[in-house]
Amino acid sequence: KVLWTVLVTMLGYASSLPVGEDALCTAEELAKYRIIFIGKWSQTAFPKQYPLYRPPAQWSSLLGVTHSSDYSMWKKNEYASNGVRDFAEKGEAWALMKEIEEAGEKIQSVHGIFSAPAISSGTGQTSTELEVHPRHPLVSFVVRIVPSPDWFVGIDSLNLCEGDHWMDEVSVDLFPYDAGTDSGFTFSSPNFATIPQDTVTEITCSSPSHPANSFYYPKLKILPPIAQVTMVKLKKSQLGLSAPFINLPAKSNEIIDTVS
Amino acid sequence: KVLWTVLVTMLGYASSLPVGEDALCTAEELAKYRIIFIGKWSQTAFPKQYPLYRPPAQWSSLLGVTHSSDYSMWKKNEYASNGVRDFAEKGEAWALMKEIEEAGEKIQSVHGIFSAPAISSGTGQTSTELEVHPRHPLVSFVVRIVPSPDWFVGIDSLNLCEGDHWMDEVSVDLFPYDAGTDSGFTFSSPNFATIPQDTVTEITCSSPSHPANSFYYPKLKILPPIAQVTMVKLKKSQLGLSAPFINLPAKSNEIIDTVS
Repeated sequence: KVLWTVLVTMLGYASSLPVGEDALCTAEELAKYRIIFIGKWSQTAFPKQYPLYRPPAQWSSLLGVTHSSDYSMWKKNEYASNGVRDFAEKGEAWALMKEIEEAGEKIQSVHGIFSAPAISSGTGQTSTELEVHPRHPLVSFVVRIVPSPDWFVGIDSLNLCEGDHWMDEVSVDLFPYDAGTDSGFTFSSPNFATIPQDTVTEITCSSPSHPANSFYYPKLKILPPIAQVTMVKLKKSQLGLSAPFINLPAKSNEIIDTVS
Repeated sequence: KVLWTVLVTMLGYASSLPVGEDALCTAEELAKYRIIFIGKWSQTAFPKQYPLYRPPAQWSSLLGVTHSSDYSMWKKNEYASNGVRDFAEKGEAWALMKEIEEAGEKIQSVHGIFSAPAISSGTGQTSTELEVHPRHPLVSFVVRIVPSPDWFVGIDSLNLCEGDHWMDEVSVDLFPYDAGTDSGFTFSSPNFATIPQDTVTEITCSSPSHPANSFYYPKLKILPPIAQVTMVKLKKSQLGLSAPFINLPAKSNEIIDTVS
């Protein structure tokens, strides 16, 4: 790592390159992962203002990207891109897909896009595959919380590479974020643009600190995770022509029962 | 083709195998396609009962599969599987993904699953990539019409292989289908299970023949296409590490303006 840092400094990139994030990945060429997203947004865990109809609590499609540290899909305390705003506010993926494509063309910072189907309830799961590359070992994705003003869950630049190998399995609890583009306070707030735009912030049980907020639970120390994501490396025998899957769990609800 | 038919007859499969559908694909190993789905469900084209809110007209995630003729995702005039029912009624993809996975494991009739993000309006587009294989050259997919009782658009077993080569580009107009599992008549009909289940039927401007039906336009000869799908073969130079895309059109609305 020292060598790399020196090299980078010499080249004058030290200030712009987040050293270490995807530097020195010397893993084998490519790796494929199954990514499983599990919604845990139940009325039991989140009783306050739980949306029961028109629409009931649910999750948008999952839109993700594998990339290098030269690209960022979204970042806490930074401004959301127009694409992330459209996705977080309306579940509209096109602008975000265009942004990713352009980053792939202009600075070759993107390896691929992936998406998984929406989930029609607050608890349930969805899944797809993704591919990482030693030069593009980072994973980011977003899933919109529906209904909500501009709230989402996601991962920002998770590195699946550890030195010379790919991680076998990673699980991460997910918590809600506010994209900073709509000032609505509750799941079903009417549209109300935030001008000027605010940065992406994490929503906690005490922030925004206002009793009207849908996630405001003053008696809790932290919110329970509203979702969880697991990435499992596919073995060579699971790749290829007729078996691009690992075993999906039997039923959406069974999983939920065991994890909650 | 004669040889193959003879062989199949000898093996006793003649009655169950749709000969010719994916027989004799001698194309190069694999092909990748970009699939672009364009919603054309505008209030202008479909003024009757056009859903404006809670929810407004939109499209679910696209869920698709590449496969051999031993698998069928859905078929006109046949009964929908439980997975297709869940997807057509609620946009819930999990059961359908499990069905596809099982077909892949048991009879190796599936090459891969693909999905594309939902579209948050009636007109708009979404896109992803898919891969076909000489033994699995057929493409099927479904997209739920939202809101609706159990209506969807899709493709059933489109063969992308022509003898020894893969087709460069295929475009297909799409029309609405009824999954036969919910007896609702209009976009916003309440849930009302069809017992016993009916087969998958195409919805036309005159069928179901009842003025209350959302697609009943007695003055039309045929409905305008409610959506369109295009599959474009990716060139070798467009594959691979940093450029898994072809150029997506600039903006969702621009496309719609030019095609409608």
